[in-house]
Amino acid sequence: MRAPDSLPVFDFRGRLARAAAALRTAGVDALVVSHLPNLRYLSGLEATAGTGLLTADGCLHLLVDPRYEAAASARVAEVGADVLAAVPTAEVSAPVRIARHATGEGARRLLLESRALSVHDARQLQRALIGAHWTGELLDDPLDLIEDLRRVKDAQELALLREGGTRLSAAARGILADGVARPGRTELEVAAEIDARVRAEGFSRAAFDTIVASGPRSAFPHARPTARRLEAGEVVVLDFGGVYGGYCVDLTRTVCLGHPSSEVDRQYHAVRAAQQAGCAAVRPGVLPTDVDRAARQVLEAAGLGEAFGHGTGHGLGLEVHEAPRLARPRPEDAAQPPLEAGVACTIEPGAYVTGRAGIRIEDDVVVTADGHERITDVPFGWPTAH
Amino acid sequence: MRAPDSLPVFDFRGRLARAAAALRTAGVDALVVSHLPNLRYLSGLEATAGTGLLTADGCLHLLVDPRYEAAASARVAEVGADVLAAVPTAEVSAPVRIARHATGEGARRLLLESRALSVHDARQLQRALIGAHWTGELLDDPLDLIEDLRRVKDAQELALLREGGTRLSAAARGILADGVARPGRTELEVAAEIDARVRAEGFSRAAFDTIVASGPRSAFPHARPTARRLEAGEVVVLDFGGVYGGYCVDLTRTVCLGHPSSEVDRQYHAVRAAQQAGCAAVRPGVLPTDVDRAARQVLEAAGLGEAFGHGTGHGLGLEVHEAPRLARPRPEDAAQPPLEAGVACTIEPGAYVTGRAGIRIEDDVVVTADGHERITDVPFGWPTAH
Repeated sequence: MRAPDSLPVFDFRGRLARAAAALRTAGVDALVVSHLPNLRYLSGLEATAGTGLLTADGCLHLLVDPRYEAAASARVAEVGADVLAAVPTAEVSAPVRIARHATGEGARRLLLESRALSVHDARQLQRALIGAHWTGELLDDPLDLIEDLRRVKDAQELALLREGGTRLSAAARGILADGVARPGRTELEVAAEIDARVRAEGFSRAAFDTIVASGPRSAFPHARPTARRLEAGEVVVLDFGGVYGGYCVDLTRTVCLGHPSSEVDRQYHAVRAAQQAGCAAVRPGVLPTDVDRAARQVLEAAGLGEAFGHGTGHGLGLEVHEAPRLARPRPEDAAQPPLEAGVACTIEPGAYVTGRAGIRIEDDVVVTADGHERITDVPFGWPTAH
Repeated sequence: MRAPDSLPVFDFRGRLARAAAALRTAGVDALVVSHLPNLRYLSGLEATAGTGLLTADGCLHLLVDPRYEAAASARVAEVGADVLAAVPTAEVSAPVRIARHATGEGARRLLLESRALSVHDARQLQRALIGAHWTGELLDDPLDLIEDLRRVKDAQELALLREGGTRLSAAARGILADGVARPGRTELEVAAEIDARVRAEGFSRAAFDTIVASGPRSAFPHARPTARRLEAGEVVVLDFGGVYGGYCVDLTRTVCLGHPSSEVDRQYHAVRAAQQAGCAAVRPGVLPTDVDRAARQVLEAAGLGEAFGHGTGHGLGLEVHEAPRLARPRPEDAAQPPLEAGVACTIEPGAYVTGRAGIRIEDDVVVTADGHERITDVPFGWPTAH
């Protein structure tokens, strides 16, 4: 395995300062960080449980159970005790700690991450605040404050995403050239070999559960691999990704184990044209929904609008799905800001015809000062049209 | 790879009937199923997004976006349209669908899963209910109603867990016998080989991110593997699991790459004795907290009570962490029912001494009519004491 040579040192102090400035702009005294990728972004702490309390003066308290006490202390030692504090929650629960802190510091306006906080945990926090005789105002975060900071990647993050794109492309080229998806193998066997090859390229793990969807199952956009054996002539969707230095990259190619029918070939080329149109639309100032429209119009013109049920792409970073959301506008969503340099996302239109085949093609791009840069580079793997 | 020969057919109709009966007992008209493993348990649908609406007459509506429409329809075809319905949410959002249904059916008492539902999604549902002029009562689920059904496994589930335990043990024996954790390799390389071996035993995927924690990092109970190279003489914690037929098994062994110091050897044997005491305590009628106490007392007697910061174990099933919780009682938790035949769980005490070493030993057990059955069987891999 090629191991990461050296990972960049992230500027956690700068991130904390920018987050605190955003709190002050929003007029709040503290943010309860419930979304674990946000906690990791701000502190470097990798944990499966924990809560942060970020104050408007730029100090983040890491509230962690005993499993993560040593890890949190190590983060404090690296980033600095003036901006990061490790707070154990074995004796006193996180909600009670937060309530005591809010009361002690006189914090009047406390912001919650409403997408990541469960109703159950919100109620525990409310009870603790009442128990501490706190009388401030509890707000929640319609702006997705930390997610918005994470949307634009800094130089260290972009370097990791580019390196991840290069390595994932190397894995994908091998997977296509060596015919990993071949008749007689099961979807599960193909997925296992894809995952091993991704790991062999230096990824710490898969970014999500690898999709190998063959034959009629290719029409299920998010099919999990099964014991079904691939057959000659079939279409197979291969969708896989890796985590490199904490950052996720994601790629899809659809292959055909033989010569496609003319209908399937036409479907494939419509998806490929839609993917090119989506990529071409990516530049600063464009709305994420307009990138989706650029790709969608191509499929609609080919009579495949109904067959494209999902969005064109999603942001990439510490999470494999993060902001922006390149899809049709939803009435329940707040308007998204236009793309700007440093945004990283997938472009992955598809067309799924039940009983025939599903096709999806996906690459990863980064928005540059005047357009975009494709960070994955893999042949399309489709047989020559007959 | 050994592929699953044939997976059992689950009794979804029976599960839906039992869940509906639990709703009627609780005096509610419908449950909004937000927790995806609960949705899978009730319907077989594997999705990364979606909501269920289960009515007290035993019908489950699968509210899914276009990515999962075909998969939901396939579930309806298998289980039966009289108890399962696929409801697309592309045009009309899930909250609005739920509100229309609640209003149309005259449902007066609607139950929410408060641990799985975010504050944001709860608010969207509340708005939709107000918009539909619904005037019923919104309750949440302090009983974790579906989780409680899932706690006791049926014959098909137990067969999968036993087969998973057998296969994970085979992988573990190979990992220990072949010295996969050896000086000079990085933690990441060891983790990649463990994962490949687990997959080669027929698991569809790892049950969680494999832990390989070497030397001083072994004292971090949930360390992620790094580029750190293993050194001779060190302790290495290997914690890994697999998903077999949808069900999770989980195993930990701690190895020493040489001869342990007498302190570390003593620490190891205390953890092993605690693990034996924990397993021995597992039988019907015992409280989960008492199993924890049985293991904890052994470590306390050895002066390692402070070094054992986490719980003794957790339930296993569709999730790698589910009910019961074998740990110290927490004031914020409702009392758990005693163990009964069919409960599956891990027994995994540990002791973590910063600057010296961390030790953890984990096996999986199933509660039987009169005691327990260990479903993993792996040598302990510790060098002969010197």
